[in-house]
Amino acid sequence: MADLQNVLDEIVQEAAECADRGVVASYIPELAKVDPDQFGIAVALPDGQVVSAGDAGTGFSIQSVSKVFTLTLALGKLGDGLWARVGREPSGNPFNSIVQLEQEKGRPRNPFINAGAIAVADLVLAGHQPREAIGEILRFMRQLADDDSIVIDESVAHSEMAHGDRNASLAHFMKSFGSIDNPVDHVLGVYFHQCAIAMTCRQLARAGLFLAGDGRDPATGAQVVSSARARRINAVMLMCGHYDGSGEFAHRVGLPGKSGVGGGILAIAPGKASIAAWSPGLDPVGNSKLGSAALEQLARRMGWSVFRA
Amino acid sequence: MADLQNVLDEIVQEAAECADRGVVASYIPELAKVDPDQFGIAVALPDGQVVSAGDAGTGFSIQSVSKVFTLTLALGKLGDGLWARVGREPSGNPFNSIVQLEQEKGRPRNPFINAGAIAVADLVLAGHQPREAIGEILRFMRQLADDDSIVIDESVAHSEMAHGDRNASLAHFMKSFGSIDNPVDHVLGVYFHQCAIAMTCRQLARAGLFLAGDGRDPATGAQVVSSARARRINAVMLMCGHYDGSGEFAHRVGLPGKSGVGGGILAIAPGKASIAAWSPGLDPVGNSKLGSAALEQLARRMGWSVFRA
Amino acid sequence: MADLQNVLDEIVQEAAECADRGVVASYIPELAKVDPDQFGIAVALPDGQVVSAGDAGTGFSIQSVSKVFTLTLALGKLGDGLWARVGREPSGNPFNSIVQLEQEKGRPRNPFINAGAIAVADLVLAGHQPREAIGEILRFMRQLADDDSIVIDESVAHSEMAHGDRNASLAHFMKSFGSIDNPVDHVLGVYFHQCAIAMTCRQLARAGLFLAGDGRDPATGAQVVSSARARRINAVMLMCGHYDGSGEFAHRVGLPGKSGVGGGILAIAPGKASIAAWSPGLDPVGNSKLGSAALEQLARRMGWSVFRA
Amino acid sequence: MADLQNVLDEIVQEAAECADRGVVASYIPELAKVDPDQFGIAVALPDGQVVSAGDAGTGFSIQSVSKVFTLTLALGKLGDGLWARVGREPSGNPFNSIVQLEQEKGRPRNPFINAGAIAVADLVLAGHQPREAIGEILRFMRQLADDDSIVIDESVAHSEMAHGDRNASLAHFMKSFGSIDNPVDHVLGVYFHQCAIAMTCRQLARAGLFLAGDGRDPATGAQVVSSARARRINAVMLMCGHYDGSGEFAHRVGLPGKSGVGGGILAIAPGKASIAAWSPGLDPVGNSKLGSAALEQLARRMGWSVFRA
Repeated sequence: MADLQNVLDEIVQEAAECADRGVVASYIPELAKVDPDQFGIAVALPDGQVVSAGDAGTGFSIQSVSKVFTLTLALGKLGDGLWARVGREPSGNPFNSIVQLEQEKGRPRNPFINAGAIAVADLVLAGHQPREAIGEILRFMRQLADDDSIVIDESVAHSEMAHGDRNASLAHFMKSFGSIDNPVDHVLGVYFHQCAIAMTCRQLARAGLFLAGDGRDPATGAQVVSSARARRINAVMLMCGHYDGSGEFAHRVGLPGKSGVGGGILAIAPGKASIAAWSPGLDPVGNSKLGSAALEQLARRMGWSVFRA
Repeated sequence: MADLQNVLDEIVQEAAECADRGVVASYIPELAKVDPDQFGIAVALPDGQVVSAGDAGTGFSIQSVSKVFTLTLALGKLGDGLWARVGREPSGNPFNSIVQLEQEKGRPRNPFINAGAIAVADLVLAGHQPREAIGEILRFMRQLADDDSIVIDESVAHSEMAHGDRNASLAHFMKSFGSIDNPVDHVLGVYFHQCAIAMTCRQLARAGLFLAGDGRDPATGAQVVSSARARRINAVMLMCGHYDGSGEFAHRVGLPGKSGVGGGILAIAPGKASIAAWSPGLDPVGNSKLGSAALEQLARRMGWSVFRA
Repeated sequence: MADLQNVLDEIVQEAAECADRGVVASYIPELAKVDPDQFGIAVALPDGQVVSAGDAGTGFSIQSVSKVFTLTLALGKLGDGLWARVGREPSGNPFNSIVQLEQEKGRPRNPFINAGAIAVADLVLAGHQPREAIGEILRFMRQLADDDSIVIDESVAHSEMAHGDRNASLAHFMKSFGSIDNPVDHVLGVYFHQCAIAMTCRQLARAGLFLAGDGRDPATGAQVVSSARARRINAVMLMCGHYDGSGEFAHRVGLPGKSGVGGGILAIAPGKASIAAWSPGLDPVGNSKLGSAALEQLARRMGWSVFRA
Repeated sequence: MADLQNVLDEIVQEAAECADRGVVASYIPELAKVDPDQFGIAVALPDGQVVSAGDAGTGFSIQSVSKVFTLTLALGKLGDGLWARVGREPSGNPFNSIVQLEQEKGRPRNPFINAGAIAVADLVLAGHQPREAIGEILRFMRQLADDDSIVIDESVAHSEMAHGDRNASLAHFMKSFGSIDNPVDHVLGVYFHQCAIAMTCRQLARAGLFLAGDGRDPATGAQVVSSARARRINAVMLMCGHYDGSGEFAHRVGLPGKSGVGGGILAIAPGKASIAAWSPGLDPVGNSKLGSAALEQLARRMGWSVFRA
């Protein structure tokens, strides 16, 4: 893995020299405070080893990257019945758009736009108290990352709640169509807390390893989900994981990935690696600017692409 | 390859027993005449061998499957400059929608919706006469399929032209935004003729083989496009190849694919195979119903998926 | 006024014989309970006299007809500065659409779609407690109708609140764009209470009289608003008062009017009369079916139209 | 009429001093050539007398003002059956939008957006040759204006045709839905010629007089349309005559009106006057900037408003 380490080190160096780092998300004050000069990258390999460089040990708010894991949890509860509530088509619209939701009568297009993730949070909640559902999500993350030190950043969660009108609008909208079962404030409580989970690149790469291993955590041997389900989660990540920049990411990087406005991206090279990159500055579509560039670089140099022979 | 032959034979048998075959496209009379009970499937392997079953030797109108090949041609002429004229994001809208085109000021979202393919035809045309451009496209198809017997079905081309108001509307719309250089009737002439190319499943699978081989035709050794470009064409196929059913196809089949309203689908298993399936009946989104089901079946049984380890 | 009385009596009789009465609003249980066979009509004349027929003395929920009066109140507070917050163009969309609100960055198109009326309620509230704003609206209605017996139907208000997710979605959406100053639940509290005001046709016709008299209540002599403002409120009523059926109403009736899902309609014949019609059954656009027909009849027979010489 | 002449003279003087005159339409070269400093206004009174000021005798391209007259002609041929083909609701969208047309399956919202006017041209054409239909429209204009010198500016008509892709797109779109009967190029030929009619303010005001007189030309006594139809044409003008600025015009001017991108506006004060104002500079919505201001001024000073007592 000396080569991989070298590649990561070079990527970190290039990132350090990059002047145009995008814009840090400012819609909640807690995210706006983050130092934009940080950059980390970590690669978890099939044997469970994690190679990393830069600020890969610094915690950040995973935000929408959490949607991959709540989708996995909800599929575990409902099975493919979940797809009756949430679609799996790319949206062709920004992450928080409500237009499509009106055209499609309150059924979100996919689980990775905000409306879809809120609907998934409703399914994870499933009649329990928000505290219980949040606990379940956190335990799931700790187990996947094999690290009990992962916590929710309460100041971020509260900040989200205090500035959550756009998401409240989406949730009430779906509620008015009957697409949400639980009380709106319960669902939003779960959603804002899952987004506020803080993780390092090393933890995040480790947590995604089951998706690179046909559903099996190759380090522990635990079958997290079936092989077919892992493939399908990867498919949804590729199709919808970068909002209206999903086509661009597939084109440039060629791997399933999911971004968050905290600047994190989780990418999966099936059979090869689970990768987490993080840099707080975002491109206009809302995806980490340096994170995407780093993944493009890494994929190119390692020859990782789902589209190659 | 006895196993593969067996799998294909079983798929043909299942297809024959299927009662719900979808609806044959009726927007032009020539397509509506096609016998809905036909079904064929062919698999081209890296060594150039083609295994097939059912009506895999019967010619059909490839329609939008042709968009993969004109995109390849146009990329050869313009390189990545093409992407300034046509996007590469999924549309989240039907294949012939004009709404998004208005919102995006006449720049089509991707080369596989009709507007995008018309813009690509304009780039292939590039100041030449329609007859020359049509000839170039046909020669390219014959070369890729290694078969000079491939022709354009002129009755289909004329039927398209006589019922082409929706496409004429898209073309004039783009022209009004300056997104099309050549005269609208020239561009439509090229577009309608490329859609009217008639091929068999065997020919089509063979023609797609370079996309399964990192851009190199593994049978002849010819490098049709660079490895990077082949990966990127596959990416666009996966993201946008089935219109507003692209997410569904990625989810169920897990391979890049492009469908046409003639009932054909070309799918690529990188490193493994180029596959063509054909059955005239379409699902509500406009993709071959039995063709999709056959590809899902085949991919599952052969273990072909870009999302697996 | 014997003639007018005769006309109203005949209209009541025709209404009684009408089999197709539309569909009573069912989105809140309290409205769904209303007897669909009721019909009333009242005409207030410049001298303050009110001529009526049918169930013109029966109270009903005025719902969106209240928007005319809160607009008048808010214009009194802010003057034409109000139009910086709310547009005055017809929407070309259903009353509760959120699509246009997204395209126009949270600024509602006009004060009579729900989003616009919620924004107006926010302006009426203006930092006060909901209780105070509701009291002010109610006092204004009593003063205009010259009748202190007018009350808010609390069971309707509570029912609205319990089924108010669509409106909550609109309010949170505007809040996320900064188009609402007060807390969302305060604004909705005001809005749901104004909609729950119960009035009879006689009271409602009387309350609208100032709009038929260039802003002056012709019976009391009080100048409620300036002449220019009265004309402009009439203009907004004509352009936007019947949601996506405004063009139809202008075409058939030819008078400014505002409808509510309780089945009430207020129409203004400038210089001639203020008219209230009520029948609970709605047409597909959400306007009273018999109410519209009665107003068309009345306008035709009395020769009232703003479009005639 | 000395007062009216004074008012018009003052309006002309104010217009001359106005620095911000809007932007002359540039989508066809012929219109872009027009001198932006021109301004004219004319008022036709019930006795047929025409009072005017400024450049009221200078011819200009009436463009979309022609839609009022072709609507009148088409209603004469089809009666209210026309409304099955074209709606009468405001659009809430720019004049040349195609979005709504897709949502509403090819049926234009009203006869004054381009799509609607093209559909009306198709109805006027009704199986005849374009030359005949154009002749009929021109004869109708001459008769209404009582002036045989009115002609079509062929250079404008040809310029429209050469730059008519947006309208061609709308026409082909409707044709694809079956909303147009005649060949698209015939319909566009009629439409481009009607838009290219050149008239002076004096001629245009005279031609609209029947709409101010309940359908009767008060000067000649000819009943052009029934009283009910005249009212309804006025209603459509008020609701839809200024595209997405119709609410604004109703609010500020308070009269039915129809604008054209040549800078002309026809406004109707029922029972009082038919008014034409012209100045080539347009506001962002596409309506004459000084023309609207002049009509607002005139209506205010003369006390003309359909919304007053």
